[in-house]
Amino acid sequence: MAYVSYIVDGLWHVGVLDGDGIIPLEGVEAIGPDTGIDELAAAPRRDDLRTGRDQVELLPSSPRPNKIFCVGLNYSSHIEETKRDLPTYPVLFPKFASNLVSADAPIVAPPESTQVDYEGELAVIIGRAGRRIRREDALDHVLGYSVANDVTMRDYQYKTHQWTQGKAWDSSTPLGPVVVTPDEVDLTAAGIRTTLNDEVVQDSDLSKLIFDIPTLIATVSEFTVLEPGDVILTGTPGGVGYRRDPQLFLHPGDRVSVEIEGVGRIDSVVVADA
Amino acid sequence: MAYVSYIVDGLWHVGVLDGDGIIPLEGVEAIGPDTGIDELAAAPRRDDLRTGRDQVELLPSSPRPNKIFCVGLNYSSHIEETKRDLPTYPVLFPKFASNLVSADAPIVAPPESTQVDYEGELAVIIGRAGRRIRREDALDHVLGYSVANDVTMRDYQYKTHQWTQGKAWDSSTPLGPVVVTPDEVDLTAAGIRTTLNDEVVQDSDLSKLIFDIPTLIATVSEFTVLEPGDVILTGTPGGVGYRRDPQLFLHPGDRVSVEIEGVGRIDSVVVADA
Repeated sequence: MAYVSYIVDGLWHVGVLDGDGIIPLEGVEAIGPDTGIDELAAAPRRDDLRTGRDQVELLPSSPRPNKIFCVGLNYSSHIEETKRDLPTYPVLFPKFASNLVSADAPIVAPPESTQVDYEGELAVIIGRAGRRIRREDALDHVLGYSVANDVTMRDYQYKTHQWTQGKAWDSSTPLGPVVVTPDEVDLTAAGIRTTLNDEVVQDSDLSKLIFDIPTLIATVSEFTVLEPGDVILTGTPGGVGYRRDPQLFLHPGDRVSVEIEGVGRIDSVVVADA
Repeated sequence: MAYVSYIVDGLWHVGVLDGDGIIPLEGVEAIGPDTGIDELAAAPRRDDLRTGRDQVELLPSSPRPNKIFCVGLNYSSHIEETKRDLPTYPVLFPKFASNLVSADAPIVAPPESTQVDYEGELAVIIGRAGRRIRREDALDHVLGYSVANDVTMRDYQYKTHQWTQGKAWDSSTPLGPVVVTPDEVDLTAAGIRTTLNDEVVQDSDLSKLIFDIPTLIATVSEFTVLEPGDVILTGTPGGVGYRRDPQLFLHPGDRVSVEIEGVGRIDSVVVADA
């Protein structure tokens, strides 16, 4: 199953993907704290209201999460390019709901930054609340997976030793368009690829994750509750623009895509802040 | 004016403090994105429903903020004890709504940490939305000030170079009980004092802030919108337990208080996680 979050006539909906169409779920406005795995499964499908995927405005796959945890340095190829040591505990930093954009919206490059960088990533969308979730139970708490681009302003990221101000720019972070449920996809070695203006700039696979998805869920939920709609961005492979020689950054007019095998693809354009 | 967030019979309310009582504001459930300075000022006061402050269960002064930004290393006395350089940009890290507790609830010490530390701090509660707020306009966006204790699990804080997992423990962070509006208090050199079991452990004043409140609001709102209910914790002065010799940590049964002149006082007890 793949869930889609979208807008029609100004109203929010959640539906299930059906070929090139969407079947709305009755009474479900958004994936979120009160709408997880069980509520989505129980919602009546309105096949009679099936709509074309191109007839709707997409939302981020989790449109207003209470918490977004990003993981840094979770692929050895990215750690090597940053010349850092292998972490023994996941490196965690935040983004916020207002940072997200949908697959239908551009990445907004702010005038303050000259170093806007891409980071293709797998996103885990939580579907069942839990605290101190055990590794072996972690996948019971996963609604599914989305594609994300953890866009980062490098000149702001390194202003201090904490990364918040480099990561939390509004309308910077594509997420979606769908949440693919775990039964639909084998992520063991699924490819992940980022493309900038038709050049492949990141190309890896999910077998290279240092901290796997159950470990990340167990780690975060040790200190705080994870709720439906919460998002974990699982880190990016090597190839980011900041570590290239010469460096490579995003500019208005650029097209950047992230694709994960079995999960989907998100194509974004970059625009200047209005 | 001082606003209080509280519960009666399971329902959330906001009221204004009136001596030892609270006058409810009609139709206002919580300070938050849709309820800022203007909405609070416009809400009818129900003097006829005045209740005793001890008749209600307090909530955190902003009970469910979308964003909580904490500032690290914002007093020179704390920077000296950490042996770090003076920052040129505020050090920013997150907490989350589920981390907050009210003045009526204990600080929960998790079994996983043996280094639970206090950090008395001034909290700024945002009252009017804005992005790229100029320093000179910043105070127009402030609903008011609260007392906070930015409780920190030091053994988790330093597991990586990012501090999230040391700061974001659920039910760890007292906030409130009131929001005192800027016209009511002169914070220029207001004293801030933390007391642990009747021993004063932090004693400073707000003239010692390196980055002042307008600078913090301008800095954060450069990258993300600030909305009513959002919280900025402005940093802690010297005297934290981790930097003492011998070190001093919180344990179940301890009483810890933070008091800020003109803003209020929050008395907490520490309990073991249930």
